[in-house]
Order: sequence, then C-alpha cells, then structure tokens
Amino acid sequence: MAKKRVGILGATGMVGQRFIELLENHPQFELTALAASDRSQGRTFQQACTWRLAGEMPESVRSMTVQAPQPPLDCELVFSSLPGDIARECEGNFADAGYAVISNSSAFRMDPDVPLLIPEVNHRHLDLLEVQRQNSKRQRGFIVTNPNCSTIMLALALAPLHFKFGVTGVVATTMQALSGAGFPGVPSLAISDNVLPFIDGEEEKIEIETLKILGQLQHGHITDASMNVSAQCHRVNVSDGHMAAVRVKLNKLATVEEVKETLASYRALPQEMNLPSAPESPIIVRDEVDRPQPRLDRDAGKGMSVTIGRLRDDNVLDYRFVALSHNTIRGAAGAAILNAELLIASGIL
Amino acid sequence: MAKKRVGILGATGMVGQRFIELLENHPQFELTALAASDRSQGRTFQQACTWRLAGEMPESVRSMTVQAPQPPLDCELVFSSLPGDIARECEGNFADAGYAVISNSSAFRMDPDVPLLIPEVNHRHLDLLEVQRQNSKRQRGFIVTNPNCSTIMLALALAPLHFKFGVTGVVATTMQALSGAGFPGVPSLAISDNVLPFIDGEEEKIEIETLKILGQLQHGHITDASMNVSAQCHRVNVSDGHMAAVRVKLNKLATVEEVKETLASYRALPQEMNLPSAPESPIIVRDEVDRPQPRLDRDAGKGMSVTIGRLRDDNVLDYRFVALSHNTIRGAAGAAILNAELLIASGIL
Amino acid sequence: MAKKRVGILGATGMVGQRFIELLENHPQFELTALAASDRSQGRTFQQACTWRLAGEMPESVRSMTVQAPQPPLDCELVFSSLPGDIARECEGNFADAGYAVISNSSAFRMDPDVPLLIPEVNHRHLDLLEVQRQNSKRQRGFIVTNPNCSTIMLALALAPLHFKFGVTGVVATTMQALSGAGFPGVPSLAISDNVLPFIDGEEEKIEIETLKILGQLQHGHITDASMNVSAQCHRVNVSDGHMAAVRVKLNKLATVEEVKETLASYRALPQEMNLPSAPESPIIVRDEVDRPQPRLDRDAGKGMSVTIGRLRDDNVLDYRFVALSHNTIRGAAGAAILNAELLIASGIL
Amino acid sequence: MAKKRVGILGATGMVGQRFIELLENHPQFELTALAASDRSQGRTFQQACTWRLAGEMPESVRSMTVQAPQPPLDCELVFSSLPGDIARECEGNFADAGYAVISNSSAFRMDPDVPLLIPEVNHRHLDLLEVQRQNSKRQRGFIVTNPNCSTIMLALALAPLHFKFGVTGVVATTMQALSGAGFPGVPSLAISDNVLPFIDGEEEKIEIETLKILGQLQHGHITDASMNVSAQCHRVNVSDGHMAAVRVKLNKLATVEEVKETLASYRALPQEMNLPSAPESPIIVRDEVDRPQPRLDRDAGKGMSVTIGRLRDDNVLDYRFVALSHNTIRGAAGAAILNAELLIASGIL
Repeated sequence: MAKKRVGILGATGMVGQRFIELLENHPQFELTALAASDRSQGRTFQQACTWRLAGEMPESVRSMTVQAPQPPLDCELVFSSLPGDIARECEGNFADAGYAVISNSSAFRMDPDVPLLIPEVNHRHLDLLEVQRQNSKRQRGFIVTNPNCSTIMLALALAPLHFKFGVTGVVATTMQALSGAGFPGVPSLAISDNVLPFIDGEEEKIEIETLKILGQLQHGHITDASMNVSAQCHRVNVSDGHMAAVRVKLNKLATVEEVKETLASYRALPQEMNLPSAPESPIIVRDEVDRPQPRLDRDAGKGMSVTIGRLRDDNVLDYRFVALSHNTIRGAAGAAILNAELLIASGIL
Repeated sequence: MAKKRVGILGATGMVGQRFIELLENHPQFELTALAASDRSQGRTFQQACTWRLAGEMPESVRSMTVQAPQPPLDCELVFSSLPGDIARECEGNFADAGYAVISNSSAFRMDPDVPLLIPEVNHRHLDLLEVQRQNSKRQRGFIVTNPNCSTIMLALALAPLHFKFGVTGVVATTMQALSGAGFPGVPSLAISDNVLPFIDGEEEKIEIETLKILGQLQHGHITDASMNVSAQCHRVNVSDGHMAAVRVKLNKLATVEEVKETLASYRALPQEMNLPSAPESPIIVRDEVDRPQPRLDRDAGKGMSVTIGRLRDDNVLDYRFVALSHNTIRGAAGAAILNAELLIASGIL
Repeated sequence: MAKKRVGILGATGMVGQRFIELLENHPQFELTALAASDRSQGRTFQQACTWRLAGEMPESVRSMTVQAPQPPLDCELVFSSLPGDIARECEGNFADAGYAVISNSSAFRMDPDVPLLIPEVNHRHLDLLEVQRQNSKRQRGFIVTNPNCSTIMLALALAPLHFKFGVTGVVATTMQALSGAGFPGVPSLAISDNVLPFIDGEEEKIEIETLKILGQLQHGHITDASMNVSAQCHRVNVSDGHMAAVRVKLNKLATVEEVKETLASYRALPQEMNLPSAPESPIIVRDEVDRPQPRLDRDAGKGMSVTIGRLRDDNVLDYRFVALSHNTIRGAAGAAILNAELLIASGIL
Repeated sequence: MAKKRVGILGATGMVGQRFIELLENHPQFELTALAASDRSQGRTFQQACTWRLAGEMPESVRSMTVQAPQPPLDCELVFSSLPGDIARECEGNFADAGYAVISNSSAFRMDPDVPLLIPEVNHRHLDLLEVQRQNSKRQRGFIVTNPNCSTIMLALALAPLHFKFGVTGVVATTMQALSGAGFPGVPSLAISDNVLPFIDGEEEKIEIETLKILGQLQHGHITDASMNVSAQCHRVNVSDGHMAAVRVKLNKLATVEEVKETLASYRALPQEMNLPSAPESPIIVRDEVDRPQPRLDRDAGKGMSVTIGRLRDDNVLDYRFVALSHNTIRGAAGAAILNAELLIASGIL
C-alpha cells in the first residue's frame, strides 16, 4: 500500500517535533508538508526550528520549507498541534478543504460531533464522523481529536475498570512534566527548587474530557459517563512524563487482585489489529513499591504504555494507584498517530 | 526568668541543625548539650558536623563536645530528632532519668499516654501527661511528641474546619521535599528529572496520626477522630517545603467563603499566649491562582505558618485546596520548640 | 541628613526587584519612583509586577504607579537596570535632564568618560566625571556604571593581586546562575539535566571590562591594564550565585600563602568609610576543600562579599582558585547601590 | 568465531550496569559471570541489583548469581569497575590466575608496565604487555586499563592536535555529571541549586594520566608527554555527560580552521579496523554557538564520540573549545569494551 502523504501543523513546537520523530520511518505515513504559525514560514525547517529532542533533526525534514497552516498543503491528512488561539480556524479550514484533520489541539475536542478518541477506549465514537459529515456538509474532510495529555493517561487507566466494575468517582492529583508547557514554556527560575500548583485550564479539561471519552454513543449523540471526576494539577521539575495519584470508587465490589488483573490484562482493538504504534500492553502494572517513576517508566511501550503502580485499597474511595505516561508521546503526538492508524485500519482513511 | 538549659539528641542531622538554628538567641532556652548517635561522639561539633543550612554554623556550638545520647546530659530538657531505630530506647532513658523529652521522633507518637501535640490544635492533650506519669511511675521526666512533618501541616489545616464543620473524609496527596529524608538522604541520581512515589511509612503515619491529633481526650484516653484519611505521598525535587493537594468532606454545609474565612481567621492558644515561636497566623490563605509554592511560601511566618491556596469546591468530596509548610521548621524542629514553649506557658516546665 | 530620593528604571525585572529589596530601609535612600519599559506603565507596582524574590513584595512599593523610563521622575538619582536596547537612550535622557544615573546596564560601560566603578577597586576613576561633564556639557546630570555581574567578581578578586604582584594573565571559566538571564530568561527545558556553554556577549564583556576597571586613569584618560584575559562562560542549573574557576599569572613571585593573605586581608575605601552596603570583608578566603558553593556562599557579606576557595599552585599559569559571588547583589543591584553610597561619601551626590 | 566469555567485576554499580547494557547483543562477547564486592554475593542479579539505567534490566542477567570478585569465574576475561580500595588486590588476583583484566579502575593505571589505553590515541602502548608479562612472570593473565572518565575525553580531544602541532600547555575546567560519583553518590541536597568545586582525586588524575597517555613508548618504557596540564574540576547537576572548557597551547602555528579540520577529520585504528564499539567519528566538531550540551550531545556516536564546540582563538593560550562526552560510556564501560575489542583485533585476546 502506498504511504499516506501527511502534513504537520505546528511543526516547530515540542509536539510537532515529536510528530516528526515518530513519523520518521513510519510504515503508513510519509511526511510531505510542514506548517507553523510563527515567523518560521518560508524558511527551511532547519533554519526555522531549533531541534529540542535527543539526537539530531532527521535529515528528511531539514530542507523542507515551513508553510503557513492553511490549505492547500501537499498531503492527504494533517496532524495538528497548533496553539489554541488559532487551532479552531486553521483546522476547520483544512477539514473544509477536504483534509482529514487529526488534531492534538483542544479546539474541537468538546464539539458534540467530533470524536475525542483513544483507540483502546472508545473506538466506537468514530461513528460520530457520520454525524459530523452531515452537520458540516463536508464531502471528505473531517476532524478527529485526541484528549489532553493527562486525560489520556487517566481515561486509559480508568477504562478497563469502568467497563468491568463501573467507575463512579475519580480523584486525580497530577504531577506534570515541563514539556507539557511547550518551549520556552516554564521559566527555569519558576520551577527550580519548586512545584507550581496551577496549570491553566488543565483541571477543567481532565474533569470534562474524561466524561466524554468514557461516555456512550447512541443515536449520534454521546451521553457523558456518569461519574464524578476531581483533578488537582501541579507542575514539577521533570522534563517528560506526567504522573497522577489516583483514587477510584467502583460500582461493583472487586478485590485488589481483580483490579490489578483487570488493568494488567487489558487489550483492545489496537492490540488486536496490531496497529504500528499500539503498545503490546496499553497498561503495565508494576509491583515494586517505588514505581512508576517518570525517568524510569515514561518510555515503556515506546512511550505508548501507561504504567501503574502502588495499587492498594483506599480509605476514602475504594482503590488508589499511581499512573504515569509519556506526555508528548502517548499524551500527544503518539496519540494522534495511533488515531490515524485506527482510521486507516477502519477504512476511514 | 532564667533560661532553661536544653540539649539536642541527634544534633548533627538536618533536623538537629534546625534545632540549633532556631534555638540561637531563643528567649527561653539556652543550648548546653549536644548529643548524636553516630561516630561524632567525643569530637567538637565543628569537627563532627558539616553544616548544611544557609549561613555559618553558629559560633556558640562550634566548640561544644558531641556526647552520646544517653543521660546524664547537662540540661533540663532534651529536644530529640534521633533516628527511629534508637529513639525509643534513648528517649525512654532520658524520661526515666527525669528529663523532659520533647521529641520529633516517631517512636512514642502513638503511645496512648503520650501527647501528640500541635499547640494550635490539641493543647488539651497535655492532660495525658498525668496519665503518663502514673503509668510510668516517673517522678519528673516525661515525653511529649510532635507529629510527622506532613501530618502537622495537614492536621493544622484541618483543625479549624473540623472544629467548626466536622471533617468526615480527607484525601491528601503530598509532594514532599528532600530535606525530609535527612542527609545524605535521597541520591541526586534518584531524583534528578524524576518524582518518587514512595516514602517509607509516610502514608501510614499521616493516616493514623491525624486521627489521634484531632481526637478527643476523655477520662485519660484519646478517642480517635471519626474520619477517614487517605494519603498518597511523593518525593519531589525540592529542597525544603512539603506540599499537599487536599480534598475534604465536611459534616455540615459551608460555603467556600466560610471555609476560607474559617481557615484564615484561625487563632489558637499559642497566638493568645504570644508564644515566641507562634506565627501571627497559623494558617495563611492566598488568593493567587498559583500559590502556594514551596520556594516562595515555605518561610511564611518564619517557617511556622501553613499556607493554603487554590481553595475551591470539589467534584467528589466537598472542598479542595493546596497546603504548604516548611517541613523542618513547622514540620519538625520548630514544632518541637513550640511544644516546649507551650509547656513553659502551661507551667509544666 | 535627609534621604536622597531615588527612582528605579527597570523596576519590574529581576535586578529591579533586588534594587527594591536592598533599598527597603536603606539609611541614605528613599524610593520615590518606579519606571519600567514594558506594558506595566500606568499600573500600580502590585498589579504590574510578579514578585520573584523570597518573601513578600514590600508594602511601600505596592501602590506606587509604574511610570515610563523617561524624565521627569520624582527623584534626584536613578538606579537603572534597563535592557540593553533602550538603556542608552533612556539613561542619556536622564543624565541630560540633570539626574545622576547609577546604571547596571552595559550601554555606557565602555564609554571613555564613564566610570566603570567597583568602589573597592577603582574609586579614583570617579575623576572621569569631570571629563564627562566637559564632554557632555551637562551641568548636573552624569552617568556612573557598574561592570557585568561576572566581571565584578573577577575584577574584585584580581585587584589585590594586581596591586601587589601585578597580574599579567587571567584564565576564567564561569558557571553562572539562572537569575543572570532575568525572567523568564532560561527555559526550564533548556537547562534541566544540562549545562549551556554560551551566554551572549558575556565572554567579551569579561575580557574587555576587566582591563578598563584595573586600568590607570591619567590626564582624564584610562589606560587599560596590561594583561590578557580569557573567559569561557557557562550557564548552570543554579538560581543565584556566579562561580568562576580562575587561573592567574603574576608579574612578581609570591607564595600561595602570600596570595591567600593578600586576598583575605584586603580592605579598601568602602570599608574604611564604612559605607552602608560595604561588606566587612570584600573577599573571604575559605580553606575547606569543597568551598565556595553557590547555595552556601552566595549570601556571604549580605551578598556583597566574594568568596574564594581552592587556592593552589597551577601547572600552567601561577595560581588557581574558585571564586563565587551573588550575581544580582554584588553583581548588579548591590554594586550600583554601593556606587551611589561612594558618590555620597565623596561629596559628588 | 565463538564469542569470548566475559565476567564483570563490580556488576551492580553504575558502570557495571553500563557494562551489562553495552554487552547485551555484543558480537564478540558473551556475559557469563557477574561479581560484586558488596552484600549482593550469592543472590540473583535481579535480587541484588536495583537497575538504574533507562529501560528494564536485561532478561539474560536476571537469574545469574552474583559472585565474589575473586577467581575462578566462568569466563576468559573480566571487565572491572571495582571500587578503588579493593581493585588492586582483586584485579591482580585475576591476572595472576590467567585472566585478561580490562579495568576501568584507577588501581593499576599509573603502573609503568600497564597500558593506559585509548584505542584511538595510543594503541602502540599495548607493547607494554610484553614488559608486564616479564615483570609479573604471568603466563597468560594481564591487565589493561582505561583512563579516568574526564581524562579520556580530554586526551582524545588533544591527541590529533598533539600529533600534528604539538601541545605544550592545557588548561581544562570540567563540569562533571552525577553518575561519575556512582550510586548513591552525590546527595540531592548537596547538588540541588548548587555546584560543587571538588571531586576527590580528579584533578590529579587528569593532570597525570594525560601525560602518560600521550607519552612515547620506547624500549619498554613510556616517557611522559612534555606538556603542562592544569585541571579544575566541578560537579554540576547533570545526570550523564562530562563537559570541559579547554584552552591549549600549541608548539606549531595553526589557524583555527586547521585546528578544527584536524579534530573533525581525525580517524584512527579503531575506525580503520571497524571495531564494533568504535564511533564513526571519534571527535565531532559542531558550529552552533551553544553546543555541545550534555543532554543533547552525550549520546553522539552511541556515547563513544567526543563532541567539541565553541572552538576559537584564546587570549592567553592559543585556542579554546568546549568538549563533552558520555562519562559512563566513552568515559568508562564503553572505553573498556573498546579496549577489549582492540585486544581481539590485535590478536592478543
């Protein structure tokens, strides 16, 4: 099968660079266009972008010219990590112009006819695309989004429990990595010897998006999951890897062993279909008393697994555990790419 | 009034050094003896101890000889921050020998006849000393303890709410500083670019001690407070200042404004008695969206105030907030000194 | 004596905040005007400025209105830490309008008729002000500058050696703190687990400014000191406190003991005149093998002393040592204030 | 060719773990024995060792039993990273018992008949093994060492310049990573917001070892290189990757371009022989103003290249540059493995 030609909107940012890294040598996608909203337009990517990931900027993108994030671009689909203020307009324009838009931005996440997709959790929400097609009167273009970086980790960890036991309450306290704020992002003087108890909009996103992701699609409409979610979010001095201390309340009785087994054995459609970016285990459960840790566990499953540890009974809710995943891979670029792989496997792309 | 002559058990450790710093120029105490359990015995303090706090080792202690943590020592009372494995025996020996033991160690905290004291919260528990006297058959010596560093912060923040509205559930997630582990403590390679989701024994201490502190003393016996406490504890890359994201469930309805006012206006016996180490406000409530922060708020009230921020309604319990205090001042050495000041003001010392 | 009324240009920045902190309760200065170049003009200082130093923003400045950095301001002299791009014009305007300008900016440092002043080193260069007056045809206004933050530390450490033995070569390798780059300054992702081997313009400033500072003023002209200076500059993950590994070549033979004694016993005019910000010892020499350290030594002499350690023979030049000082106190705001104090003591202000 | 059976002495330490990681899937070596000096003897490696590198402990070593670092071990050669206090005795015992000892320890480095080997620099020093054989009267066993982690980087960077232009003076100021101190190594409280200007024995090793490495072997005796080396060493808050700011004085005139070309084009025996661990470029020269950086460049050449940047004229010596390499790969385990590969290619093993 010929590779799909893809473009990246927001290519010079932290998530944009992860897109480039993950698409290098991807079996299904060929990177043919780079766009960014900033002053970098018209320059080669090498001139426009300071590479901030480990290793060197891939050869293949160095001489590509950075374009404006507006159609037309030489590609069939676009991955977007545009900043919030322009994402809605730009992504809408691409969808209107017939492109598949696989977005990591928050602009369209909560639109009723836009799937907020985690392939292991709610692939059935792709049926919303038919509703979106009708609402938008678009022939071919459409928009699929992935959740906020912390929400993905949380919703993926909750899904097996919710499906099996019913989750009725969630109390999540996050300790989030610096890369989540992009570059330049958090000033070093702000985080050195410090923790910041505020990430703008983050708690609201976790509390709202989780309900949609775990909700039921019926008759073209998603009914939010019936649970209460409480999020308190903190920025800590870690480069990559979001962590969350989580308590859950379940509808059905379960033992700690059942909860653990349910999480560790969880497999879903991406694993069955063997999607290229799907980790063997979406959720890895560790038994050591001091795991997960960002530096040791963020790259599990090539950054696509959520690692869970310290699973125990809780005194106030039912169970508690600590979850961790890579915020710019499973939480952003990798999430969007897995979404696109699911779209291909589903015949939509 | 002549100053009380005091000794420090565990003088070379992180908390021991805080004792020395806080006792320098104290109006009621004169430091006359230093003891430590390690190889430093018999050497001068300057030889035995690498000073790890800001500024220079106080002149007054440099030539003092480090002694074994066993009676007799040339003092009336001892402040102890001995390590857990020897604290019980050593502290017991001092009490038996007639010394007042003001301990920061965990050894005796949960003994039914030992006050686990926060002067702003449960000064009435000092009546346990009469029970302790009878049980131990000691004429003069006794033991008073202060809680674990995280527990003090939590219990002090909960107390005004518990007294006014009744607290029935607490979910606390801590992000704790490196100095809590002492020196050498946490290896730099373990915490660089990382968070550790495990502090040995910490969660249990918070969950148990809180109930005793907020409990009722009746007929010589403390009945634990009737609430559920859940703690998840993490070590973050911060030098000083423990932080906790807290949710509480109240027995009586209250508005956010009432909760806030109740915390901010809280004053207790140490403030009324104007004890030397008592902060003007035991609890400071801040309105900025991004406070408290360890580096900015740990020294509030000379390290003796708990700073609370981000107070809001919660989706699962009733209210949530973030609390912060200095773990080796309010959470350790300062706590013990305030306990001793209360003992003086109460005529017990 | 009535206090001088002073204004701060660049009041919202990191150095501006240090000015405010150091002028709080200063015996000779009263802060009466705040100016900044940014969007903060017209707002109260409390609204315009996020306070980034330890403790709270001083009460006295909270309700002051931030003004444009242009005359007139309600004050007699201005301390300036304006950014380089506008400093030359703004500071020139203030001098032309009759104000004494005590600048921390680099704009005028190398002008032949502007003193580049370290009171302990080259107070005689104040005679340049007469030349400046003639050149500028100003009646009352004038400009005095202090050197770059690293240069001050280096030149102050070299001065006693140069005066006594003659310094002919200097090899300095700096490890500089984050606060030197201001706020937001260095992104956390850039410095986490990293060292940056580049600080724009810093090496040139050290290599050039040092020669002027240690130069001879004769007939209204400064002849550069006759020595070679090599600087390599690095940014390290430290909040405050610049460090430099230094080798020096001397013209006259000296023993390590003589070098040490020369540094440790150095006193100069500010010490003799007992200027309010002058440290008792401009240079502190420590004998421990592992000192100086930024966190432990940056506040020596209230941030105004340079601490030197590890003084030994060198295999290539003659001697080597490690120097450290507080980059925003002795290296910036404190330096400018000491300059102003010298101007008062000299009858110029 | 059958793989050589190798053992690791000091297998549980930081360098020991790097040995295991680098030997996993090595084409010439098969890991058959693990030994350590500590309490881990007799336990499986999984029980005895907390894995501190990224990813999981390799399957192949988990069930291997940790043995005492004494012969016999089931292997032909041993890689040693034993601590200094026992290395001399243990390594000597293995050599006496007929094993090839490829050591990263400092114990034998300066023995006149022990090669202090960097394959790209002084492979001719292997002729010392004949002298060693005669001196020791050993039939088969022998000892080959690699230099100190900082020395390797420095000597490799100097070698091309020394061979072509003659190096007469070197001034090196290092900023070294935490992993160089092993685990637990540097306490977090010691390095947080700090730089330590002292690493025990490090400066002496750099100053002495460099002369031997670059020295001439004649008639079974190495004559030290005739140059002066000055080293000042600092510990910075970086996990991996030693950095050095270097000035050099050359014997022959050269332009910056010639110096740069000489470094960048340097290839030596390991590259010609295509040894498995030899990097394509032993020295990578970068032109960006802000490189090298530990986090971005330490893994260049799979951790075996030295990256050099900021190459410029110097005001005191002739040239200056900044060098960086991975201290536990090129500076330790990788260095020893490359030494062993050279021994195989040379027919000695």
